[in-house]
Amino acid sequence: MRKAESITSAANPLLKEVRRAIVRGGLTEQGWCVAESFHLLEEALRSEREVKVVLVAESVRSAAEAHVRGLSGIRIVVLPDALFQRLSGTETSQGVMALVNPPAWKLEQLFRGCPLVVVLDSLQDPGNAGAIVRAAEAFGATGALFVKGSASPHNPKTLRASAGSLFRVPCLHGVDAALARAALEQNKVKLYAGVPARPGASLRSIAEVDLTGRCGLIVGNEAHGVSEALRSAALEVFIPTVGVESLNAAVAAGIMLYEARRQRSLRS
Amino acid sequence: MRKAESITSAANPLLKEVRRAIVRGGLTEQGWCVAESFHLLEEALRSEREVKVVLVAESVRSAAEAHVRGLSGIRIVVLPDALFQRLSGTETSQGVMALVNPPAWKLEQLFRGCPLVVVLDSLQDPGNAGAIVRAAEAFGATGALFVKGSASPHNPKTLRASAGSLFRVPCLHGVDAALARAALEQNKVKLYAGVPARPGASLRSIAEVDLTGRCGLIVGNEAHGVSEALRSAALEVFIPTVGVESLNAAVAAGIMLYEARRQRSLRS
Repeated sequence: MRKAESITSAANPLLKEVRRAIVRGGLTEQGWCVAESFHLLEEALRSEREVKVVLVAESVRSAAEAHVRGLSGIRIVVLPDALFQRLSGTETSQGVMALVNPPAWKLEQLFRGCPLVVVLDSLQDPGNAGAIVRAAEAFGATGALFVKGSASPHNPKTLRASAGSLFRVPCLHGVDAALARAALEQNKVKLYAGVPARPGASLRSIAEVDLTGRCGLIVGNEAHGVSEALRSAALEVFIPTVGVESLNAAVAAGIMLYEARRQRSLRS
Repeated sequence: MRKAESITSAANPLLKEVRRAIVRGGLTEQGWCVAESFHLLEEALRSEREVKVVLVAESVRSAAEAHVRGLSGIRIVVLPDALFQRLSGTETSQGVMALVNPPAWKLEQLFRGCPLVVVLDSLQDPGNAGAIVRAAEAFGATGALFVKGSASPHNPKTLRASAGSLFRVPCLHGVDAALARAALEQNKVKLYAGVPARPGASLRSIAEVDLTGRCGLIVGNEAHGVSEALRSAALEVFIPTVGVESLNAAVAAGIMLYEARRQRSLRS
Protein backbone atom coordinates (compact mmCIF):
# COMPACT_ATOMS: atom_id res chain seq x y z
CA MET A 1 0.00 0.00 0.00
CA ARG A 2 1.07 3.53 -0.81
CA LYS A 3 2.63 5.50 2.00
CA ALA A 4 0.59 8.55 2.83
CA GLU A 5 2.07 11.67 4.32
CA SER A 6 0.27 13.50 7.02
CA ILE A 7 -0.06 17.16 7.86
CA THR A 8 -1.42 18.30 11.17
CA SER A 9 -0.67 22.02 11.20
CA ALA A 10 -2.53 24.82 9.43
CA ALA A 11 0.83 26.60 9.17
CA ASN A 12 2.13 23.96 6.75
CA PRO A 13 3.30 25.79 3.59
CA LEU A 14 1.33 23.55 1.19
CA LEU A 15 -1.93 24.09 3.08
CA LYS A 16 -1.33 27.83 3.30
CA GLU A 17 -0.74 27.95 -0.44
CA VAL A 18 -3.90 25.93 -1.18
CA ARG A 19 -5.92 28.14 1.13
CA ARG A 20 -4.60 31.23 -0.66
CA ALA A 21 -5.59 29.79 -4.05
CA ILE A 22 -9.12 29.11 -2.76
CA VAL A 23 -9.53 32.58 -1.27
CA ARG A 24 -8.06 34.41 -4.24
CA GLY A 25 -9.88 32.18 -6.73
CA GLY A 26 -6.91 31.04 -8.78
CA LEU A 27 -4.09 28.53 -9.12
CA THR A 28 -1.61 27.66 -6.40
CA GLU A 29 1.90 29.13 -6.67
CA GLN A 30 3.02 25.87 -8.26
CA GLY A 31 0.42 26.42 -10.97
CA TRP A 32 -2.00 23.71 -9.82
CA CYS A 33 -5.76 24.04 -9.77
CA VAL A 34 -7.78 23.04 -6.73
CA ALA A 35 -10.39 20.39 -7.51
CA GLU A 36 -12.51 19.65 -4.47
CA SER A 37 -14.84 16.60 -4.22
CA PHE A 38 -14.64 12.95 -5.22
CA HIS A 39 -16.42 13.78 -8.44
CA LEU A 40 -13.80 16.30 -9.55
CA LEU A 41 -10.99 13.91 -8.62
CA GLU A 42 -12.62 11.29 -10.84
CA GLU A 43 -13.13 13.83 -13.61
CA ALA A 44 -9.46 14.85 -13.46
CA LEU A 45 -8.41 11.20 -13.73
CA ARG A 46 -10.80 10.30 -16.56
CA SER A 47 -9.69 13.44 -18.42
CA GLU A 48 -6.09 12.23 -18.06
CA ARG A 49 -5.04 15.33 -16.20
CA GLU A 50 -1.95 15.00 -14.05
CA VAL A 51 -3.03 14.79 -10.42
CA LYS A 52 -0.12 15.96 -8.28
CA VAL A 53 -1.50 15.73 -4.75
CA VAL A 54 -4.64 14.42 -3.12
CA LEU A 55 -5.45 16.07 0.19
CA VAL A 56 -7.81 13.94 2.20
CA ALA A 57 -9.59 14.13 5.54
CA GLU A 58 -8.68 11.27 7.88
CA SER A 59 -12.24 9.90 7.95
CA VAL A 60 -12.47 9.35 4.17
CA ARG A 61 -8.87 8.28 3.68
CA SER A 62 -9.60 4.76 2.50
CA ALA A 63 -12.26 5.90 0.02
CA ALA A 64 -9.80 8.41 -1.46
CA GLU A 65 -7.04 5.82 -1.62
CA ALA A 66 -9.36 3.48 -3.50
CA HIS A 67 -9.83 6.17 -6.15
CA VAL A 68 -6.13 6.41 -6.95
CA ARG A 69 -5.17 2.77 -6.43
CA GLY A 70 -2.72 1.59 -9.06
CA LEU A 71 -1.81 5.11 -10.16
CA SER A 72 1.74 6.20 -9.55
CA GLY A 73 3.19 9.61 -8.84
CA ILE A 74 0.29 10.96 -6.78
CA ARG A 75 1.15 12.28 -3.31
CA ILE A 76 -1.53 11.46 -0.76
CA VAL A 77 -1.64 13.82 2.19
CA VAL A 78 -3.90 13.02 5.13
CA LEU A 79 -5.30 15.79 7.34
CA PRO A 80 -7.32 15.69 10.54
CA ASP A 81 -11.01 16.27 9.66
CA ALA A 82 -11.20 19.62 11.42
CA LEU A 83 -8.13 20.91 9.62
CA PHE A 84 -9.51 19.77 6.26
CA GLN A 85 -12.78 21.52 7.01
CA ARG A 86 -10.94 24.76 7.76
CA LEU A 87 -8.95 24.43 4.55
CA SER A 88 -11.99 23.80 2.38
CA GLY A 89 -14.30 26.44 3.74
CA THR A 90 -17.29 24.83 1.97
CA GLU A 91 -20.18 23.75 4.16
CA THR A 92 -20.66 20.39 2.54
CA SER A 93 -17.09 19.30 2.00
CA GLN A 94 -16.58 15.62 1.16
CA GLY A 95 -13.08 15.67 2.59
CA VAL A 96 -11.12 15.26 -0.60
CA MET A 97 -9.26 17.82 -2.70
CA ALA A 98 -7.02 17.15 -5.68
CA LEU A 99 -4.27 19.48 -6.86
CA VAL A 100 -4.24 19.11 -10.60
CA ASN A 101 -2.04 20.30 -13.42
CA PRO A 102 -4.52 22.33 -15.49
CA PRO A 103 -4.62 21.84 -19.25
CA ALA A 104 -2.78 24.44 -21.33
CA TRP A 105 -4.57 25.15 -24.59
CA LYS A 106 -3.44 26.83 -27.77
CA LEU A 107 -5.65 29.25 -29.65
CA GLU A 108 -6.01 26.97 -32.67
CA GLN A 109 -7.46 24.19 -30.50
CA LEU A 110 -10.54 26.36 -29.92
CA PHE A 111 -11.19 26.56 -33.66
CA ARG A 112 -10.85 23.00 -34.84
CA GLY A 113 -13.34 21.59 -37.38
CA CYS A 114 -16.39 23.78 -37.75
CA PRO A 115 -15.85 25.98 -34.69
CA LEU A 116 -18.53 26.72 -32.14
CA VAL A 117 -16.89 29.01 -29.60
CA VAL A 118 -18.54 30.49 -26.55
CA VAL A 119 -17.16 33.90 -25.58
CA LEU A 120 -17.47 35.01 -21.96
CA ASP A 121 -17.39 38.78 -22.04
CA SER A 122 -16.67 40.05 -18.52
CA LEU A 123 -18.91 37.37 -17.11
CA GLN A 124 -18.19 37.64 -13.42
CA ASP A 125 -19.81 34.88 -11.47
CA PRO A 126 -17.64 31.73 -11.30
CA GLY A 127 -20.77 29.60 -10.86
CA ASN A 128 -22.15 30.94 -14.13
CA ALA A 129 -18.80 30.62 -15.92
CA GLY A 130 -18.41 26.99 -14.88
CA ALA A 131 -21.99 26.09 -15.80
CA ILE A 132 -21.40 27.63 -19.24
CA VAL A 133 -18.28 25.54 -19.87
CA ARG A 134 -20.25 22.47 -18.78
CA ALA A 135 -22.96 23.34 -21.32
CA ALA A 136 -20.29 24.13 -23.94
CA GLU A 137 -18.94 20.60 -23.66
CA ALA A 138 -22.45 19.13 -23.57
CA PHE A 139 -23.43 20.81 -26.83
CA GLY A 140 -20.20 20.13 -28.68
CA ALA A 141 -18.62 23.57 -28.56
CA THR A 142 -15.00 23.60 -29.71
CA GLY A 143 -13.81 26.07 -27.12
CA ALA A 144 -14.44 28.86 -24.64
CA LEU A 145 -12.80 32.26 -24.67
CA PHE A 146 -12.74 34.05 -21.31
CA VAL A 147 -12.34 37.74 -22.12
CA LYS A 148 -10.39 39.81 -19.56
CA GLY A 149 -12.63 40.80 -16.69
CA SER A 150 -14.38 37.43 -16.58
CA ALA A 151 -14.18 34.97 -13.69
CA SER A 152 -11.07 32.83 -13.91
CA PRO A 153 -11.41 29.27 -15.20
CA HIS A 154 -8.84 28.44 -12.51
CA ASN A 155 -11.08 29.60 -9.69
CA PRO A 156 -11.99 26.45 -7.71
CA LYS A 157 -15.63 27.61 -7.83
CA THR A 158 -15.56 27.80 -11.63
CA LEU A 159 -14.00 24.36 -11.82
CA ARG A 160 -16.62 22.93 -9.45
CA ALA A 161 -19.50 24.50 -11.40
CA SER A 162 -18.04 23.08 -14.63
CA ALA A 163 -18.34 19.59 -13.09
CA GLY A 164 -14.98 18.79 -14.67
CA SER A 165 -15.69 20.09 -18.21
CA LEU A 166 -12.85 22.59 -17.68
CA PHE A 167 -10.45 19.64 -17.81
CA ARG A 168 -11.57 18.95 -21.37
CA VAL A 169 -12.96 22.01 -23.16
CA PRO A 170 -10.22 24.11 -24.80
CA CYS A 171 -10.21 27.46 -23.01
CA LEU A 172 -8.19 30.66 -23.15
CA HIS A 173 -8.59 33.26 -20.46
CA GLY A 174 -7.60 36.80 -19.60
CA VAL A 175 -7.75 37.73 -23.28
CA ASP A 176 -8.12 41.43 -24.06
CA ALA A 177 -11.44 42.17 -25.86
CA ALA A 178 -9.75 43.63 -28.95
CA LEU A 179 -7.45 40.62 -29.21
CA ALA A 180 -10.35 38.24 -28.77
CA ARG A 181 -12.21 39.99 -31.54
CA ALA A 182 -9.19 39.85 -33.86
CA ALA A 183 -8.68 36.13 -33.17
CA LEU A 184 -12.35 35.37 -33.81
CA GLU A 185 -12.41 37.39 -37.02
CA GLN A 186 -9.17 35.89 -38.25
CA ASN A 187 -10.67 32.45 -37.74
CA LYS A 188 -13.68 33.46 -39.84
CA VAL A 189 -16.09 32.96 -37.01
CA LYS A 190 -19.43 34.72 -37.32
CA LEU A 191 -20.26 36.36 -34.02
CA TYR A 192 -23.63 36.43 -32.31
CA ALA A 193 -24.13 38.57 -29.21
CA GLY A 194 -26.91 37.54 -26.87
CA VAL A 195 -28.89 40.63 -25.88
CA PRO A 196 -32.25 41.20 -24.17
CA ALA A 197 -35.20 41.65 -26.50
CA ARG A 198 -35.84 45.40 -26.93
CA PRO A 199 -39.24 46.69 -28.00
CA GLY A 200 -39.00 48.27 -31.43
CA ALA A 201 -35.49 46.99 -32.17
CA SER A 202 -35.21 44.85 -35.27
CA LEU A 203 -33.36 42.00 -33.61
CA ARG A 204 -33.24 38.43 -34.80
CA SER A 205 -34.26 35.59 -32.54
CA ILE A 206 -31.67 32.92 -31.78
CA ALA A 207 -33.88 30.36 -33.54
CA GLU A 208 -34.00 32.45 -36.74
CA VAL A 209 -30.26 32.83 -37.33
CA ASP A 210 -28.10 30.16 -38.93
CA LEU A 211 -25.79 28.70 -36.31
CA THR A 212 -24.60 25.79 -38.43
CA GLY A 213 -21.45 27.51 -39.73
CA ARG A 214 -18.28 28.67 -37.96
CA CYS A 215 -19.73 30.65 -35.12
CA GLY A 216 -19.08 32.36 -31.82
CA LEU A 217 -21.74 32.98 -29.18
CA ILE A 218 -21.02 35.96 -26.91
CA VAL A 219 -22.43 35.97 -23.38
CA GLY A 220 -22.17 39.30 -21.61
CA ASN A 221 -21.69 40.54 -18.08
CA GLU A 222 -24.52 39.72 -15.67
CA ALA A 223 -25.40 43.39 -15.14
CA HIS A 224 -24.14 45.23 -18.23
CA GLY A 225 -24.47 42.68 -21.02
CA VAL A 226 -22.08 42.41 -23.97
CA SER A 227 -19.41 45.13 -24.26
CA GLU A 228 -19.39 47.59 -27.14
CA ALA A 229 -16.00 46.26 -28.31
CA LEU A 230 -17.49 42.86 -29.08
CA ARG A 231 -21.07 43.87 -29.81
CA SER A 232 -19.98 46.04 -32.73
CA ALA A 233 -18.43 42.97 -34.40
CA ALA A 234 -21.45 40.76 -33.83
CA LEU A 235 -25.02 40.25 -34.93
CA GLU A 236 -27.30 40.88 -31.96
CA VAL A 237 -29.66 38.02 -31.23
CA PHE A 238 -32.24 37.52 -28.52
CA ILE A 239 -33.97 34.62 -26.83
CA PRO A 240 -37.74 35.12 -27.10
CA THR A 241 -39.02 35.74 -23.59
CA VAL A 242 -41.87 37.51 -21.84
CA GLY A 243 -42.04 39.46 -18.61
CA VAL A 244 -38.37 39.47 -17.64
CA GLU A 245 -35.56 41.85 -18.54
CA SER A 246 -33.15 39.01 -19.06
CA LEU A 247 -32.32 35.44 -18.13
CA ASN A 248 -29.58 34.19 -15.84
CA ALA A 249 -26.35 34.32 -17.89
CA ALA A 250 -25.67 30.57 -17.67
CA VAL A 251 -29.27 29.74 -18.62
CA ALA A 252 -29.07 32.11 -21.60
CA ALA A 253 -25.74 30.65 -22.73
CA GLY A 254 -27.07 27.12 -22.30
CA ILE A 255 -30.07 27.91 -24.50
CA MET A 256 -27.92 29.50 -27.22
CA LEU A 257 -25.63 26.45 -27.21
CA TYR A 258 -28.62 24.07 -27.22
CA GLU A 259 -30.09 25.92 -30.20
CA ALA A 260 -26.75 25.78 -32.06
CA ARG A 261 -26.52 22.05 -31.41
CA ARG A 262 -30.12 21.49 -32.48
CA GLN A 263 -29.55 23.27 -35.79
CA ARG A 264 -26.23 21.51 -36.36
CA SER A 265 -27.67 18.06 -35.82
CA LEU A 266 -30.58 18.74 -38.17
CA ARG A 267 -28.03 19.81 -40.78
CA SER A 268 -25.65 16.87 -40.38
CA MET B 1 -40.36 64.91 2.62
CA ARG B 2 -41.02 61.62 4.36
CA LYS B 3 -39.63 61.27 7.84
CA ALA B 4 -37.10 58.48 8.03
CA GLU B 5 -36.39 56.53 11.16
CA SER B 6 -32.90 55.62 12.06
CA ILE B 7 -31.38 52.57 13.73
CA THR B 8 -27.83 52.60 14.99
CA SER B 9 -27.63 49.41 17.05
CA ALA B 10 -27.20 45.86 15.81
CA ALA B 11 -29.24 44.79 18.83
CA ASN B 12 -32.36 46.43 17.41
CA PRO B 13 -35.11 43.77 17.25
CA LEU B 14 -36.02 44.48 13.60
CA LEU B 15 -32.41 44.12 12.46
CA LYS B 16 -31.93 40.96 14.49
CA GLU B 17 -35.04 39.50 12.92
CA VAL B 18 -33.90 40.41 9.39
CA ARG B 19 -30.46 38.96 10.05
CA ARG B 20 -32.08 35.73 11.27
CA ALA B 21 -34.19 35.51 8.09
CA ILE B 22 -31.07 35.95 5.95
CA VAL B 23 -29.05 33.36 7.84
CA ARG B 24 -31.87 30.83 8.00
CA GLY B 25 -32.93 31.50 4.41
CA GLY B 26 -36.57 32.26 5.02
CA LEU B 27 -39.14 34.90 5.91
CA THR B 28 -38.92 37.23 8.90
CA GLU B 29 -41.10 36.47 11.90
CA GLN B 30 -43.62 38.98 10.56
CA GLY B 31 -43.81 36.93 7.35
CA TRP B 32 -41.89 39.37 5.16
CA CYS B 33 -39.34 38.39 2.56
CA VAL B 34 -36.00 40.10 2.35
CA ALA B 35 -35.35 41.69 -1.05
CA GLU B 36 -31.89 43.16 -1.23
CA SER B 37 -30.76 45.56 -4.02
CA PHE B 38 -32.30 48.48 -5.86
CA HIS B 39 -33.35 46.13 -8.61
CA LEU B 40 -35.41 43.91 -6.29
CA LEU B 41 -36.99 46.96 -4.66
CA GLU B 42 -38.05 48.15 -8.12
CA GLU B 43 -39.28 44.66 -9.02
CA ALA B 44 -41.37 44.51 -5.84
CA LEU B 45 -42.94 47.87 -6.65
CA ARG B 46 -43.62 47.12 -10.33
CA SER B 47 -45.12 43.77 -9.29
CA GLU B 48 -47.43 45.67 -6.92
CA ARG B 49 -46.16 43.82 -3.90
CA GLU B 50 -46.68 45.54 -0.58
CA VAL B 51 -43.33 46.97 0.54
CA LYS B 52 -43.43 47.30 4.32
CA VAL B 53 -39.99 48.63 5.17
CA VAL B 54 -36.98 49.86 3.23
CA LEU B 55 -33.72 49.53 5.12
CA VAL B 56 -31.08 51.80 3.65
CA ALA B 57 -27.43 52.60 4.26
CA GLU B 58 -26.85 56.28 5.06
CA SER B 59 -24.73 56.86 1.94
CA VAL B 60 -27.46 55.82 -0.51
CA ARG B 61 -30.38 57.27 1.43
CA SER B 62 -31.42 59.83 -1.15
CA ALA B 63 -31.30 57.32 -4.01
CA ALA B 64 -33.51 54.96 -2.03
CA GLU B 65 -35.92 57.74 -1.11
CA ALA B 66 -36.23 58.66 -4.78
CA HIS B 67 -37.37 55.11 -5.51
CA VAL B 68 -40.31 55.28 -3.14
CA ARG B 69 -41.24 58.95 -3.58
CA GLY B 70 -44.98 59.42 -3.71
CA LEU B 71 -45.72 56.00 -2.24
CA SER B 72 -47.38 55.93 1.13
CA GLY B 73 -47.16 53.43 3.92
CA ILE B 74 -43.52 52.47 3.47
CA ARG B 75 -41.30 52.81 6.53
CA ILE B 76 -37.83 54.04 5.66
CA VAL B 77 -35.14 53.05 8.13
CA VAL B 78 -31.66 54.51 7.78
CA LEU B 79 -28.59 52.63 9.04
CA PRO B 80 -24.95 53.59 9.28
CA ASP B 81 -23.10 52.03 6.31
CA ALA B 82 -21.04 49.68 8.47
CA LEU B 83 -24.14 48.39 10.26
CA PHE B 84 -25.92 47.82 6.94
CA GLN B 85 -22.91 45.93 5.62
CA ARG B 86 -22.95 43.66 8.67
CA LEU B 87 -26.68 43.07 8.25
CA SER B 88 -26.41 42.21 4.57
CA GLY B 89 -23.42 39.94 4.66
CA THR B 90 -23.07 40.12 0.85
CA GLU B 91 -19.78 41.40 -0.49
CA THR B 92 -21.26 43.70 -3.07
CA SER B 93 -24.20 45.15 -1.18
CA GLN B 94 -25.84 48.22 -2.72
CA GLY B 95 -27.05 49.39 0.68
CA VAL B 96 -30.76 48.87 0.19
CA MET B 97 -33.03 46.10 1.42
CA ALA B 98 -36.81 45.95 1.15
CA LEU B 99 -39.03 43.91 3.45
CA VAL B 100 -41.88 42.77 1.26
CA ASN B 101 -45.16 41.01 1.80
CA PRO B 102 -44.70 37.90 -0.36
CA PRO B 103 -47.49 36.85 -2.70
CA ALA B 104 -49.73 34.03 -1.47
CA TRP B 105 -50.84 31.77 -4.29
CA LYS B 106 -53.59 29.22 -4.53
CA LEU B 107 -53.08 25.87 -6.24
CA GLU B 108 -55.51 26.69 -9.06
CA GLN B 109 -53.47 29.76 -10.04
CA LEU B 110 -50.64 27.46 -11.12
CA PHE B 111 -52.94 25.69 -13.57
CA ARG B 112 -54.70 28.49 -15.40
CA GLY B 113 -55.20 28.29 -19.16
CA CYS B 114 -53.08 25.58 -20.75
CA PRO B 115 -50.77 24.92 -17.82
CA LEU B 116 -47.01 24.74 -18.10
CA VAL B 117 -45.79 24.01 -14.59
CA VAL B 118 -42.19 23.56 -13.55
CA VAL B 119 -41.73 21.14 -10.66
CA LEU B 120 -38.66 21.52 -8.45
CA ASP B 121 -38.08 18.08 -6.95
CA SER B 122 -35.70 18.48 -3.98
CA LEU B 123 -33.71 21.02 -5.91
CA GLN B 124 -31.40 22.34 -3.24
CA ASP B 125 -29.43 25.31 -4.46
CA PRO B 126 -31.30 28.61 -4.01
CA GLY B 127 -29.36 30.13 -6.91
CA ASN B 128 -30.61 27.37 -9.19
CA ALA B 129 -34.16 27.58 -7.84
CA GLY B 130 -34.32 31.34 -8.41
CA ALA B 131 -32.85 31.11 -11.91
CA ILE B 132 -35.47 28.48 -12.75
CA VAL B 133 -38.37 30.69 -11.63
CA ARG B 134 -36.87 33.52 -13.69
CA ALA B 135 -36.79 31.22 -16.74
CA ALA B 136 -40.30 29.99 -15.90
CA GLU B 137 -41.64 33.53 -16.16
CA ALA B 138 -39.56 34.22 -19.28
CA PHE B 139 -41.03 31.23 -21.13
CA GLY B 140 -44.61 31.73 -20.03
CA ALA B 141 -44.91 28.98 -17.43
CA THR B 142 -48.09 29.19 -15.40
CA GLY B 143 -46.49 28.21 -12.11
CA ALA B 144 -43.75 26.56 -10.11
CA LEU B 145 -44.20 23.79 -7.59
CA PHE B 146 -41.43 23.51 -4.98
CA VAL B 147 -41.60 19.94 -3.67
CA LYS B 148 -40.60 19.45 -0.03
CA GLY B 149 -36.84 19.28 0.31
CA SER B 150 -36.26 22.02 -2.25
CA ALA B 151 -34.72 25.42 -1.50
CA SER B 152 -37.30 27.85 -0.17
CA PRO B 153 -38.69 30.47 -2.54
CA HIS B 154 -38.53 32.77 0.50
CA ASN B 155 -34.79 32.41 0.87
CA PRO B 156 -33.33 35.85 0.05
CA LYS B 157 -30.83 34.09 -2.24
CA THR B 158 -33.64 32.42 -4.20
CA LEU B 159 -35.44 35.74 -4.52
CA ARG B 160 -32.25 37.47 -5.71
CA ALA B 161 -31.52 34.75 -8.27
CA SER B 162 -35.11 35.01 -9.54
CA ALA B 163 -34.43 38.72 -10.29
CA GLY B 164 -37.94 39.44 -9.02
CA SER B 165 -39.83 36.75 -10.95
CA LEU B 166 -40.82 35.23 -7.60
CA PHE B 167 -43.04 38.28 -7.07
CA ARG B 168 -45.08 37.29 -10.12
CA VAL B 169 -44.90 33.57 -10.91
CA PRO B 170 -47.50 31.55 -8.98
CA CYS B 171 -45.56 29.25 -6.65
CA LEU B 172 -46.39 26.70 -4.01
CA HIS B 173 -43.66 25.34 -1.78
CA GLY B 174 -43.01 22.68 0.82
CA VAL B 175 -45.45 20.36 -0.96
CA ASP B 176 -45.07 16.66 -0.20
CA ALA B 177 -44.11 14.66 -3.33
CA ALA B 178 -47.21 12.45 -3.20
CA LEU B 179 -49.47 15.49 -2.84
CA ALA B 180 -47.70 17.27 -5.68
CA ARG B 181 -48.21 14.23 -7.86
CA ALA B 182 -51.89 14.03 -6.98
CA ALA B 183 -52.43 17.74 -7.70
CA LEU B 184 -50.66 17.48 -11.04
CA GLU B 185 -52.60 14.38 -12.05
CA GLN B 186 -55.90 15.86 -10.94
CA ASN B 187 -55.19 18.87 -13.13
CA LYS B 188 -54.59 16.56 -16.08
CA VAL B 189 -51.03 17.68 -16.50
CA LYS B 190 -48.78 15.33 -18.45
CA LEU B 191 -45.49 14.99 -16.59
CA TYR B 192 -42.02 14.96 -18.11
CA ALA B 193 -39.01 14.18 -15.94
CA GLY B 194 -35.67 15.50 -17.11
CA VAL B 195 -33.07 12.74 -16.80
CA PRO B 196 -29.53 12.27 -18.10
CA ALA B 197 -29.24 10.37 -21.37
CA ARG B 198 -28.46 6.72 -20.58
CA PRO B 199 -26.77 4.50 -23.15
CA GLY B 200 -29.16 1.79 -24.24
CA ALA B 201 -32.23 3.29 -22.58
CA SER B 202 -35.10 4.04 -24.92
CA LEU B 203 -35.63 7.60 -23.79
CA ARG B 204 -37.23 10.38 -25.77
CA SER B 205 -35.43 13.63 -26.41
CA ILE B 206 -37.05 16.81 -25.11
CA ALA B 207 -37.39 18.01 -28.73
CA GLU B 208 -39.29 14.86 -29.74
CA VAL B 209 -42.07 14.97 -27.18
CA ASP B 210 -45.15 17.15 -27.50
CA LEU B 211 -44.99 19.94 -24.93
CA THR B 212 -47.87 21.94 -26.37
CA GLY B 213 -50.55 20.49 -24.10
CA ARG B 214 -51.09 20.73 -20.35
CA CYS B 215 -47.69 19.81 -19.05
CA GLY B 216 -45.38 19.70 -16.10
CA LEU B 217 -41.58 19.66 -16.37
CA ILE B 218 -39.82 18.03 -13.42
CA VAL B 219 -36.31 19.14 -12.51
CA GLY B 220 -34.54 16.89 -10.03
CA ASN B 221 -32.04 17.26 -7.24
CA GLU B 222 -28.57 18.41 -8.33
CA ALA B 223 -26.92 15.17 -7.23
CA HIS B 224 -29.66 12.53 -7.29
CA GLY B 225 -32.00 13.66 -10.06
CA VAL B 226 -35.77 13.18 -10.03
CA SER B 227 -37.20 11.14 -7.15
CA GLU B 228 -38.88 7.78 -7.72
CA ALA B 229 -42.20 9.16 -6.40
CA LEU B 230 -42.44 11.63 -9.28
CA ARG B 231 -40.47 9.76 -11.93
CA SER B 232 -42.91 6.87 -11.84
CA ALA B 233 -45.72 9.26 -12.85
CA ALA B 234 -43.74 10.89 -15.63
CA LEU B 235 -42.33 10.22 -19.06
CA GLU B 236 -38.54 10.42 -18.87
CA VAL B 237 -36.99 12.83 -21.33
CA PHE B 238 -33.42 13.86 -21.93
CA ILE B 239 -31.59 16.81 -23.42
CA PRO B 240 -29.26 15.54 -26.15
CA THR B 241 -25.70 16.16 -24.94
CA VAL B 242 -22.23 14.70 -25.38
CA GLY B 243 -19.36 14.20 -22.96
CA VAL B 244 -21.06 15.28 -19.72
CA GLU B 245 -23.09 13.31 -17.21
CA SER B 246 -25.59 16.10 -16.85
CA LEU B 247 -26.11 19.84 -17.11
CA ASN B 248 -26.43 22.38 -14.33
CA ALA B 249 -30.02 22.07 -13.04
CA ALA B 250 -31.00 25.64 -13.90
CA VAL B 251 -29.51 25.35 -17.38
CA ALA B 252 -31.39 22.08 -17.94
CA ALA B 253 -34.67 23.57 -16.69
CA GLY B 254 -34.14 26.67 -18.84
CA ILE B 255 -33.66 24.53 -21.93
CA MET B 256 -36.76 22.42 -21.21
CA LEU B 257 -38.81 25.60 -20.72
CA TYR B 258 -37.34 27.17 -23.88
CA GLU B 259 -38.21 24.05 -25.84
CA ALA B 260 -41.79 24.06 -24.47
CA ARG B 261 -42.15 27.70 -25.41
CA ARG B 262 -40.71 27.12 -28.88
CA GLN B 263 -43.19 24.32 -29.56
CA ARG B 264 -46.08 26.29 -28.14
CA SER B 265 -45.42 29.36 -30.28
CA LEU B 266 -45.12 27.25 -33.43
CA ARG B 267 -48.48 25.72 -32.56
CA SER B 268 -50.28 28.99 -31.80
